[in-house]
Amino acid sequence: MRQLSQAERQFLTTHRVARLATVDAQGQPFVVPICYVFDGTAVYSALDEKPKSVAPMQLKRVRNIIADPHVALVVDDYSEDWRALAYLQIRGQAVLVEPGSQEQRAAIPLLRAKYVQYQAMAIDQQPVLQITPEAISSWGAVFTARS
Amino acid sequence: MRQLSQAERQFLTTHRVARLATVDAQGQPFVVPICYVFDGTAVYSALDEKPKSVAPMQLKRVRNIIADPHVALVVDDYSEDWRALAYLQIRGQAVLVEPGSQEQRAAIPLLRAKYVQYQAMAIDQQPVLQITPEAISSWGAVFTARS
Repeated sequence: MRQLSQAERQFLTTHRVARLATVDAQGQPFVVPICYVFDGTAVYSALDEKPKSVAPMQLKRVRNIIADPHVALVVDDYSEDWRALAYLQIRGQAVLVEPGSQEQRAAIPLLRAKYVQYQAMAIDQQPVLQITPEAISSWGAVFTARS
Repeated sequence: MRQLSQAERQFLTTHRVARLATVDAQGQPFVVPICYVFDGTAVYSALDEKPKSVAPMQLKRVRNIIADPHVALVVDDYSEDWRALAYLQIRGQAVLVEPGSQEQRAAIPLLRAKYVQYQAMAIDQQPVLQITPEAISSWGAVFTARS
């Protein structure tokens, strides 16, 4: 897999919301907005709801990933000036990293640094979704500019 | 399938961008932002690129839908006040409606009315993606408010 370019990395780390596509046990797609962080290697997303409505492990995105780890994630800019449209898509595999694991404990402070909202939420008591990129594609002038 | 509530219909028709998840021939998810209209029954999306970079029928979303018509679409609001987060997800099946068909000819003016950008683009020369909802889910205070 190629690495993220500098422009792609900046786009990914500065955006606040991504949309995560998963596939259910019947092979049908499912897509929801998520908050996330990127640590330079993987994307992490907490399993809370905001506010919590179902138990984290019962979330459909979680059940889907347990059935099939393949996911796709998109971060994008919409503008009425269509020359400014842009998106970055990451395809890869997702796993749940459990509370107490090194990866989960590293992800929690990154999530709380990016989203102060998480500082009052017990996301450390839950698994975190870890998405390892396998393919990267991007589109839009922001990614092709020379500057 | 249940009908869209009035709040869901308003949310869908007033937003400018959705994210469309498809599944490729290997069963792996794919997700991109799209422009769209809703005519009260189906969602329609033009097959241009902005600007065009590959032939419409070669777009991966199109190849995926030909291989597997199941799609999922999400429209959402992000806010730093997480009490204002909201999303509407539509799952269903997609088909290409061809230039000259009644459905394609009805969709083109709706797309050009919602997006003036399309008035200068020959979207009428291309098929349009028609997504028929089969399942609707929404989340967020905007959908549960009594007003």
